[in-house]
Amino acid sequence: MRIILCGFGVVGQSLVKLFNSRSEDLYAKYGLKPRVVGVFDSKGSAIDSSGLDLEKLVETKKKFGTIKNYSITKNNWSGLDIIKNLEAEVLIETTASNYKDAEPGMTHITTAMKRGMHIISVNKGPLALAFPSLLELAKYNQVMLKFSGTVGGGTPILDYAKESLRGERIISFAGILNGTTNYILTNMANGLSFESALKDAKDKGYVEADESLDLDGLDAAAKLVILANWIMGMKVTMPDIKCTGIRKVTNDDIKKAAMKKCAIKLIASCNKTLEVSPKEVSIDDPLCVNGTLNAIAFTSEHSGTQTIIGKGAGGMETASSILRDLLDIRQETSRI
Amino acid sequence: MRIILCGFGVVGQSLVKLFNSRSEDLYAKYGLKPRVVGVFDSKGSAIDSSGLDLEKLVETKKKFGTIKNYSITKNNWSGLDIIKNLEAEVLIETTASNYKDAEPGMTHITTAMKRGMHIISVNKGPLALAFPSLLELAKYNQVMLKFSGTVGGGTPILDYAKESLRGERIISFAGILNGTTNYILTNMANGLSFESALKDAKDKGYVEADESLDLDGLDAAAKLVILANWIMGMKVTMPDIKCTGIRKVTNDDIKKAAMKKCAIKLIASCNKTLEVSPKEVSIDDPLCVNGTLNAIAFTSEHSGTQTIIGKGAGGMETASSILRDLLDIRQETSRI
Repeated sequence: MRIILCGFGVVGQSLVKLFNSRSEDLYAKYGLKPRVVGVFDSKGSAIDSSGLDLEKLVETKKKFGTIKNYSITKNNWSGLDIIKNLEAEVLIETTASNYKDAEPGMTHITTAMKRGMHIISVNKGPLALAFPSLLELAKYNQVMLKFSGTVGGGTPILDYAKESLRGERIISFAGILNGTTNYILTNMANGLSFESALKDAKDKGYVEADESLDLDGLDAAAKLVILANWIMGMKVTMPDIKCTGIRKVTNDDIKKAAMKKCAIKLIASCNKTLEVSPKEVSIDDPLCVNGTLNAIAFTSEHSGTQTIIGKGAGGMETASSILRDLLDIRQETSRI
Repeated sequence: MRIILCGFGVVGQSLVKLFNSRSEDLYAKYGLKPRVVGVFDSKGSAIDSSGLDLEKLVETKKKFGTIKNYSITKNNWSGLDIIKNLEAEVLIETTASNYKDAEPGMTHITTAMKRGMHIISVNKGPLALAFPSLLELAKYNQVMLKFSGTVGGGTPILDYAKESLRGERIISFAGILNGTTNYILTNMANGLSFESALKDAKDKGYVEADESLDLDGLDAAAKLVILANWIMGMKVTMPDIKCTGIRKVTNDDIKKAAMKKCAIKLIASCNKTLEVSPKEVSIDDPLCVNGTLNAIAFTSEHSGTQTIIGKGAGGMETASSILRDLLDIRQETSRI
């Protein structure tokens, strides 16, 4: 299966390592032989239609900070050149999420779809801004659009709600979908000021380059858009979410909540309205997880409330969800 | 789809109500038209090869305590007569779990399999005592054996681990799989003695007729057998589980644990060995849920530890898992 990989950050590198370490097992167990024919990062690209050397890719990135130096005869192909000209079955989009115009991910995805490639996106931007129309475009071009890694990282939240709960009717859901703000709020509950907690989170590498994505709730809102479309069949995008971040949460608010045996958490919820905002959650509620953990509680008609808790991010975790999507594509295409 | 229903207790009645309330939706959405052609409880049976009247079944049971009185011309068919003589595609086994010889469920299941019926069992006995051979018998007779409701009630624990985590390798798991003992231990932590907590649980109807199934860990062990076989590919049965119940847990043990910010929980775990025993769990661990809740934490190679929390029992909850299995059978058989 020929793959074009957009972006070669932590997730891209983890994915390549995963392919490498499990190549035998993936072939034996699932008949999957991933062949990465093109990769690009912000500085350049590497291409080989017979498949790039995965170890060499990782080494090159480590040594030079870009995969441009992969081969001595450097190529001048841009990412878009690769998508327009290389033959591949699957495009994996891992560039950074952008909630203004969703670029460059949006162009990568739509261009690849029009060329008949299946898409796996862990980039939330295009889905947050245009979920309904992207799904339509995928249908029109008869390609699959997969995005397991956009919500919950390696924790298969979307799959759980869509597949494991088949036959059920989900009435509402509420979740802690952003680990960074959960980490900050947890530390504030432990006595740190907002500023110190934010600095600590930055030092640990938890905060997005644009901190607003975490602090103002945009990341959580993007995930809520994806959940609302996929699980509840709503046709919504970012502007439909009522979104408040955590900047105005004070230590005093947290103390007051604690006196009621509650904690303040940034909750993304779907219950008639779609909303992201800081809310008091009882510390006895399974949803009330600490640190960088994510959690989501689905309430369904017959089987009550079910909560899933797991890491919501991480390179290898997110790579494992890309692998799941790839196995689905492999299975679907081999059926035809 | 013609169905024989073994047992007409809380789960059986909930299932019939579910069929009734969602008949239009099930047909429109999934093409499923469940037709219950035979039902039996411990006192008698009701049969109609063109499909029994679901409302009348529930009313009869409510009025007479048995479905024997469903029609004026009572039939003398035993459960086994029904399974041997009626034509049906699916047998749903909901009689009580028995870990001595798994009867009468075992005979119901094996007889139906030999007649080519697909099986949905929420009865844990046959699976706990003979999982590997039942799976083989199903394969030999080319029928499906489904059992989603045996672990977690309406919470799709088995499905999550098997399907949502596909492509992953689960290394170990640990869970609170018996709501009754969790309820008793929670109340003991709140100051009740074992005896008072047990009495309270009995008054609320949480305890099995044979209290040993809960208190000595047999129910949890049966679920562990099913998980170990299905998720980990182990070929084990009840005697392979090292099982200790909660009878020897004292309020003193619980107090000592609390001083270490831990609670004592009856944990079923698979980590090299298979074990059910009371263990100290940190109250910060997502696994540490209270009341009658169930929880299970799967640790996998790439995506860390993921915890699922939900109600582990309940008539309608378990009925919803039977419906999931039925939809799977419907989908698989319509594919052939």
